[in-house]
Amino acid sequence: MRNILVIGAGRSSSELIKYLLDKSKIEDLFIVVADISLENAEERTQGHENAKALLFDVFNDEQRREEIQKADLVISMLPARFHIEVAKECIEFGKHMVTASYVSKEMKALDTEAKAKGLVFMNEIGVDPGIDHMSAMQVIDRIRDNGAKILLFESFTGGLVAPESDDNLWNYKFTWNPRNVVVAGQGGAAKFIQEGTYKYIPYHKLFRRTEFLTLNGDGKFEAYANRDSLKYRSVYDLEDIPTMYRGTIRKVGFSRAWNIFVQLGMTDDTYTIEDSEHMSYRDFTNLFLAYSPSDSVELKLRSYLKIDQDDVMWDKLVELDIFNADKKVGLKNATPAQILQKILSDSWTLGADDKDMIVMHHKFGYEIQGEKRQIESSLVVKGENQTYTAMAKTVGLPVAMAALKILNKEIATPGVQIPISKEVYIPILKELEEYGIKFSEKKVPYLGYNPENVIG
Amino acid sequence: MRNILVIGAGRSSSELIKYLLDKSKIEDLFIVVADISLENAEERTQGHENAKALLFDVFNDEQRREEIQKADLVISMLPARFHIEVAKECIEFGKHMVTASYVSKEMKALDTEAKAKGLVFMNEIGVDPGIDHMSAMQVIDRIRDNGAKILLFESFTGGLVAPESDDNLWNYKFTWNPRNVVVAGQGGAAKFIQEGTYKYIPYHKLFRRTEFLTLNGDGKFEAYANRDSLKYRSVYDLEDIPTMYRGTIRKVGFSRAWNIFVQLGMTDDTYTIEDSEHMSYRDFTNLFLAYSPSDSVELKLRSYLKIDQDDVMWDKLVELDIFNADKKVGLKNATPAQILQKILSDSWTLGADDKDMIVMHHKFGYEIQGEKRQIESSLVVKGENQTYTAMAKTVGLPVAMAALKILNKEIATPGVQIPISKEVYIPILKELEEYGIKFSEKKVPYLGYNPENVIG
Repeated sequence: MRNILVIGAGRSSSELIKYLLDKSKIEDLFIVVADISLENAEERTQGHENAKALLFDVFNDEQRREEIQKADLVISMLPARFHIEVAKECIEFGKHMVTASYVSKEMKALDTEAKAKGLVFMNEIGVDPGIDHMSAMQVIDRIRDNGAKILLFESFTGGLVAPESDDNLWNYKFTWNPRNVVVAGQGGAAKFIQEGTYKYIPYHKLFRRTEFLTLNGDGKFEAYANRDSLKYRSVYDLEDIPTMYRGTIRKVGFSRAWNIFVQLGMTDDTYTIEDSEHMSYRDFTNLFLAYSPSDSVELKLRSYLKIDQDDVMWDKLVELDIFNADKKVGLKNATPAQILQKILSDSWTLGADDKDMIVMHHKFGYEIQGEKRQIESSLVVKGENQTYTAMAKTVGLPVAMAALKILNKEIATPGVQIPISKEVYIPILKELEEYGIKFSEKKVPYLGYNPENVIG
Repeated sequence: MRNILVIGAGRSSSELIKYLLDKSKIEDLFIVVADISLENAEERTQGHENAKALLFDVFNDEQRREEIQKADLVISMLPARFHIEVAKECIEFGKHMVTASYVSKEMKALDTEAKAKGLVFMNEIGVDPGIDHMSAMQVIDRIRDNGAKILLFESFTGGLVAPESDDNLWNYKFTWNPRNVVVAGQGGAAKFIQEGTYKYIPYHKLFRRTEFLTLNGDGKFEAYANRDSLKYRSVYDLEDIPTMYRGTIRKVGFSRAWNIFVQLGMTDDTYTIEDSEHMSYRDFTNLFLAYSPSDSVELKLRSYLKIDQDDVMWDKLVELDIFNADKKVGLKNATPAQILQKILSDSWTLGADDKDMIVMHHKFGYEIQGEKRQIESSLVVKGENQTYTAMAKTVGLPVAMAALKILNKEIATPGVQIPISKEVYIPILKELEEYGIKFSEKKVPYLGYNPENVIG
């Protein structure tokens, strides 16, 4: 019996645990599902005989050390900042580890020890980061193995509401952590390179510098730039590439309207509002507009941001009820971002029958024997319901597959790593296809970085 | 003989040291001017027999302790972050201390010890903070002593170029630390209260939400909001005041043009530009504009920010030479803010004969016996030349006067403090008048917070 300790039984763990339980008999696995809520853990194990639900506090040193010692491999689905103590003890007790999180400096620092002990510490193996790395590297390696030179890599990912559940003016609902959506793009300028020219977009212009994407059969999308595309040059060993851009996908029109909140200052998470608790949604909106003894909040907002009253952006604001004088914020000492999140959650929470959708799209431009070519590769995954969402599927399945393949020594190269080697991405991408997670690839004329697709 | 140690002989110390030297014979003072540059220190002491120029490194513990022990009072004109070691040793050796800097948490924490040892630790006694505190409190106390209720306090300060030296389209030159001008307003939303309503302006809208000011005889000005006006409610004991606003003064039209740099992202100081050193001014500008294989940097900028070519904002940009393809940045690993500062310094450095000017303007609204009234109080100070600037005068003189009055026990209340008590502001404001630093006050009709003066 091989023991897997899964720390964290939240939304992201449903498909992950289901996969392991489904394989547990044939693969001789025993799964301990550890969570701060026993109820959550039990909902995941469903009384399965090869599993145990465990009330678990990651800050309880004794319990944490005890459970890690019993395991052969530890999966941490907690937020990234909670990984490091677990990781250090995995080194101490000689256990493999898998996470879907970005490699922190502290995690990176364990590389030498992990290698010395022959341990695989696999990170960034969810959807983004995760499937994006694997699907990109598969094409990049293939192009390079053919002797071509890569000229362009653009990569876009988005967590959206599925078309059949898309019933608001924003064409958007929260399918993952709402807070990440509200503060998206903050903390520094977006950085990328296009045709050899560095480009920097400040946060307050990010949602006005979007690019359009058309996915065959799945409609028109837009993308805003991610924070740091430049670092992927070294990650993917594309140091001299002239165009490297990563972005987040939304339905067309989202960003132009979201920009209103950015311009008003409603997405700021760095200070708290005075007397936030008893304020109405209307009062909240008025905080960001000039004082007037007579003009309405509506007129002030339209005039300030130059929004015509027959512009759909205006209808989007009205749909969210931000001018409602009766609805109360009800949050003490809240930041603007927290209050906005509350307001958006009224409208953007997935209904009981709603489905989510993950969209990923890569563009690869390259030159071979003097000829320039381009490949586009796309993925669309829809959720089944509110438990087995597209997000849970695309995050959880690669994590679970990596864990099993590590135990089975299919993935054996030790060290702190991300899934960019053939040893990792070939078998996992192959198995993901069995679960409907399959990229469709097509050749297109080489466009290079095409500014015709760019707004403003 | 009373010994005063002045740490820092930079631009802000000229008037301060001159004042002390002029009084040194009659007041029996000996001044040690300590600076990291002996040349700077000697330029200040000019061989005066009651002074010594000292090569001094504030990080040299032994030297610092030795010099503080010899002094009766220490004036630190270094940037605020360097005060705390000096302050702790002033406590240890029982010396008074004077600075023009904001009271840090660490400084505040010394209050009990300072009081126990009977030491005066006077801070925020330059111009802003400093003369603003004193001149405001003098009127506020007078109004309150008459039994009136204060309804409104607005306060504006600006360091500008004097009209006779005002010869560029921006009506602005650097009269103080250029870096502070470039990053002004960053680090959080501006916060204030108007007619009982809290208002928050994000950085990227700060320069579009200015207010107009007309100073009799000195022309039209505008002001943008300072970071945190709300904290002055407790500082001035005006907790329930419905309108509290502090702003920075510029000549009309500055902010609208400055906003271009904010919108482009050129004022960002949080990341470094790749290959900044060999880039031209034009390349730098292009970093913040969309890629195009054919459109000019000029056209892209005008289109992006919707600037007409006959708009004076456009002429302001051209005047700064930001489209010059030959001028090189020449700064390694520089942030956008550092590069912008370099570009602006080409145009905005004070010439040999240029004079600076300090403008301060307060509005006080109050109610007495059912009647609402308003007082406005203004100060304009012009510099004499590049050494004895208005800035050096208004920063240095109150510091020097406070130091002497502490030694003479005219200011005797111990503790870490700012100049808001009558004991401090009455004698200092009186003596400042002898040096031409005199507020003119007038009664005006009560306007309350008047939104007619506000742009968009």
